Amino acid sequence: MNKKYLELTKLIRSKQNDHEILKCLSNYHENDIADMLTVMTPKERKRIYTLLEPQKIAEIFAYLDEPQIYFSELSVKDAAKVVSLMDSDDAVDVLETLDDKKKYEIVENLDKAAIKDVKMLLSYDDDEIGSCMTTNYICIPKGLSVRQAMSELVRQAGTNDNISTIYVLDESLKFAGAIDLKDLIIARKHDVLDDIIVRSYPSVTDHEKIDDCMEKIMDYSEDSIPVLSQDGHMLGVITSEDIVEIVDNEMGEDYAKLAGLTAEEDLKETTAQSMKKRLPWLIILLFLGMIVSSVVGVFEHVVAVLPIVICFQSLVLDMAGNVGTQSLAVTIRVLMDETLTGKQKLFLLVKEMKIGLLNGGILGIMALALLGIYIHLFKGYTWIGAFGISGCVGISLLVAMVISSLVGTVIPMFFHKIKIDPAVASGPLITTVNDLVAVVTYYGLAFLLLIM
Amino acid sequence: MNKKYLELTKLIRSKQNDHEILKCLSNYHENDIADMLTVMTPKERKRIYTLLEPQKIAEIFAYLDEPQIYFSELSVKDAAKVVSLMDSDDAVDVLETLDDKKKYEIVENLDKAAIKDVKMLLSYDDDEIGSCMTTNYICIPKGLSVRQAMSELVRQAGTNDNISTIYVLDESLKFAGAIDLKDLIIARKHDVLDDIIVRSYPSVTDHEKIDDCMEKIMDYSEDSIPVLSQDGHMLGVITSEDIVEIVDNEMGEDYAKLAGLTAEEDLKETTAQSMKKRLPWLIILLFLGMIVSSVVGVFEHVVAVLPIVICFQSLVLDMAGNVGTQSLAVTIRVLMDETLTGKQKLFLLVKEMKIGLLNGGILGIMALALLGIYIHLFKGYTWIGAFGISGCVGISLLVAMVISSLVGTVIPMFFHKIKIDPAVASGPLITTVNDLVAVVTYYGLAFLLLIM
Repeated sequence: MNKKYLELTKLIRSKQNDHEILKCLSNYHENDIADMLTVMTPKERKRIYTLLEPQKIAEIFAYLDEPQIYFSELSVKDAAKVVSLMDSDDAVDVLETLDDKKKYEIVENLDKAAIKDVKMLLSYDDDEIGSCMTTNYICIPKGLSVRQAMSELVRQAGTNDNISTIYVLDESLKFAGAIDLKDLIIARKHDVLDDIIVRSYPSVTDHEKIDDCMEKIMDYSEDSIPVLSQDGHMLGVITSEDIVEIVDNEMGEDYAKLAGLTAEEDLKETTAQSMKKRLPWLIILLFLGMIVSSVVGVFEHVVAVLPIVICFQSLVLDMAGNVGTQSLAVTIRVLMDETLTGKQKLFLLVKEMKIGLLNGGILGIMALALLGIYIHLFKGYTWIGAFGISGCVGISLLVAMVISSLVGTVIPMFFHKIKIDPAVASGPLITTVNDLVAVVTYYGLAFLLLIM
Repeated sequence: MNKKYLELTKLIRSKQNDHEILKCLSNYHENDIADMLTVMTPKERKRIYTLLEPQKIAEIFAYLDEPQIYFSELSVKDAAKVVSLMDSDDAVDVLETLDDKKKYEIVENLDKAAIKDVKMLLSYDDDEIGSCMTTNYICIPKGLSVRQAMSELVRQAGTNDNISTIYVLDESLKFAGAIDLKDLIIARKHDVLDDIIVRSYPSVTDHEKIDDCMEKIMDYSEDSIPVLSQDGHMLGVITSEDIVEIVDNEMGEDYAKLAGLTAEEDLKETTAQSMKKRLPWLIILLFLGMIVSSVVGVFEHVVAVLPIVICFQSLVLDMAGNVGTQSLAVTIRVLMDETLTGKQKLFLLVKEMKIGLLNGGILGIMALALLGIYIHLFKGYTWIGAFGISGCVGISLLVAMVISSLVGTVIPMFFHKIKIDPAVASGPLITTVNDLVAVVTYYGLAFLLLIM
C-alpha cells in the first residue's frame, strides 16, 4: 500500500511559508505530489501551483488520473504552458479529457513545437499505435563520429528524456538503425560509430492497429520502439512506459469483454456511463435467451409427465456454459498470436475437444453416481428409475461439455477469420448455442429413455 | 504480423559457408533468430550454436518460449556458460523450465558471480517481487564527483546494460537515491553530483507480493525500480521489460480466473496439463449445481401444474449470471487499488445496485411485453394468462439482476477482506447464489401469482 501522499499532505499543511513547502515537495516523487493534489482543497492547490515551476507542474500533472479537474484551476495561458512542457503523448492524453472548448483554447496557446506534435498525435485513431507515441526522443544523422554522436546526445538530452536508445536517420531522414546508449558510452573516441548501430532494430508503422502490433512490441522487449511513416520516416517512439500502458489497456479490454462489458470501467464513471457499457450485451442476451426459451417450450410435455427432470436443467446448462467460457478464453488468447498456422488451429480444436471429452467423462460419471443415490434416497424413486434419470444427466453433461468445447473454440476462430473481434462477438453466441445443445440433449434423452 | 524469422530461415538455409551465415545472422534481431531456431532441425541448430559466441547465444536464448528444448542440445558446460551470461532473472526463468537433474548440473557449473545471483533469485517464491528482479544494474557510492560518477558508469556499463538509472548507495551500502542518466549526461564537470540525486525515488522490498506492489510500480512509471531488503540494502532492480512482463502475467491471471481457469494456458501445454487447470473449478461447480438442483426440486409441483414456466427458467438464470459476472469483473479490478476507502467501496456497491435496478427495469419491461405477446400468440394462453406468466419473468429478471449486482459486488469484497484472492473464489459462489435467488424468485412468484 502506498500512503506516502497522505504523509506528504499532512506535512505540507503544517508548513508556514513558501520556502518550507517547496523544500518539502522537493523530497517527494511527482506521483506522490499528484496523489496529494487529489486530496487537497482547490485553495490549497492554487497555492501549490503558484510555487512550482511550470516544468515541475507538467511532470506532476502527467501522473494525474483526472487532469481535467486540475487544469480548470489554471488560467488558459498557464495550462497551455504546462501542456507544452509535457511529453507529446501525455499532452494528448490530457487534452482528450478536456471539453472541446477548453481543449481548443489550450491548443491555440501551445508552444509552436508542441502544437505540431500534438496535432499530429491527435490525427490518429485511438486504436492506432501512432496515437500512443511520443515525439520526445534522440536522433542523429548517419555518418557521425563517436565523439560527435556523444555531443549531439548531450545537446538533445536537455529537452528529450528518452535517451536510452539513440535513433539514426539517413540522408533522406529515414530510419536507419538504433544505437544502444550503453554501447555509445563504452565506445572509445576513435571507434567507428557505424559498428555499434543496430540495423535489425524492430519498428512499427504509425497506422498499425495496437491490437495487431502489441505482441510484436512485447516480443522484442526493447526499451523503446520507433514509429515510422509508411515510407520509413521516423515520427516518434513508443517508450517502455507506453508499452506498459498499452499492455495494461489491451489486457484490460480482453478482460472486460470476457465479462460482457463493452469496455473496462472504473470507480469514477457515472452510473449512466456504466449502464451504457453493459446494457448492449444484456439486451442481445435477452433476445438470444428467448430463442432458447422457445426451444425449451418444445419439451413442455416431457416436464408435464416427469417434473423431476427440471431439477437438473440448471446443472447441465451451467456446466456447458462454464466449459464454453473456458474454451473461449483460451482460444481468444491463443488467437492473439497472428503467426498461428491452420495446423495449429486444428491442433487447438482437437485438444479442446479432448479436454471436453475427458472432463465431461469424469463429471458425467460423478453426476451419474451421486445424483442416482440422491434421487433414490430423497425423491423416492426406485434404483432403476433414479439411475435412469441421473444417467440422462450424466450423458447430457458429457455431450454438452464436448459440444461446448467445440463451439467455444470454433466460434471465436470464425469471428477472427472474418475480422470481427472474437472477444466481443463470441460470448453471447456461444452461450446460446450451448444452452440449445444442452437443452435438446437433456430433454431429448429424457424423452427417449424415460418416457417413450 | 511478424514473419521476419521465416525470411531469415530461408536465407540461412541458402548460405553455403560459416562466414556467410554469421554475416546474415548479424543483420537480424535476437528475437528473430530465436524464432528461427524454433522452426529449424536440431542438426541445423547445432551448427548455428557452434558459430555463435556464448554471449550472443545467451541473448538469443533469453527470447525463447521453451528454452529447455534448446538447452538440452548443448553440453552442460556450454549451457552453464550461456546461463552465466544471461541477466539473472532470465537465467532463473530458463532454469525453472529444466528438469531438476539438468538444473542442478547447470547451476553447479555456473560462473561464481552468476551462482550467487541465481541462488538468491531462486530463494524467492514465485509471487514475491524478488523473484522477478535482475542483479544487472549500475550503482555508485555516495560522495563522488560528476566526473567520477561518469567514469564509474563507463566501467560498469561493460557488464551491466540497465544503465538508464544509476543507483546511489550510502556508506553502509543502503539505497540512498537514484540518478537519471540523462541528468548525469547533461551535468557539467564541476556540478555537484548530490544535486542530481533523486531521493524520492520509489522502491519495493524483496518479499513484497507481486499482486500488492504491481499497482505501485505502474503508478510511478519509472524505467526501473530498485528492490531492497528489509533493512534497506539494494538487492536488484525491476527493469521496464520486467514491468511489462509482470503486468502481462498479472492481467493474464485475472483474465484466466474470470474464465474459470486456475491459470493462463497456451497452445504448448499438454491435454493433461490443461485438464488439471480446468477440472477443479468444474468439480466445485458440479457440487454447487447440485445444491441448486435440490432447491429447484422444491418447486416440482409448480412445474407439474404449469409446465410452461420451465421455458423461461434458463432466461432468468442466464441473465442473473451475466449481470453477476459483470459486477464481479468490475469489482475485482477496482479492488486492485489498495488505497480504496470504505466509503468508496460503499459507493461502488450502491452504484452497482443502481445499475442492476435500471438495467433490470429496462430488461424486465422488455421481457414482460415481448414474452406476453409470444405466449398469447404461440402458446394459446389468454392475454391475462400470458401477461401473468411474462409478468413473473419480468419481475424475476428485475429482482434477480439487483440481487446479482449486490452479490457480484459483496462476495469479492468479502473475500478480499479475509485475504482470499477474490478472482478465484468468487465466481462459483456468485453463480450459485445467483441461481438460487433467481430460481426461488421465479418459481416462488409463479406459485404465488399463478397457482395459489
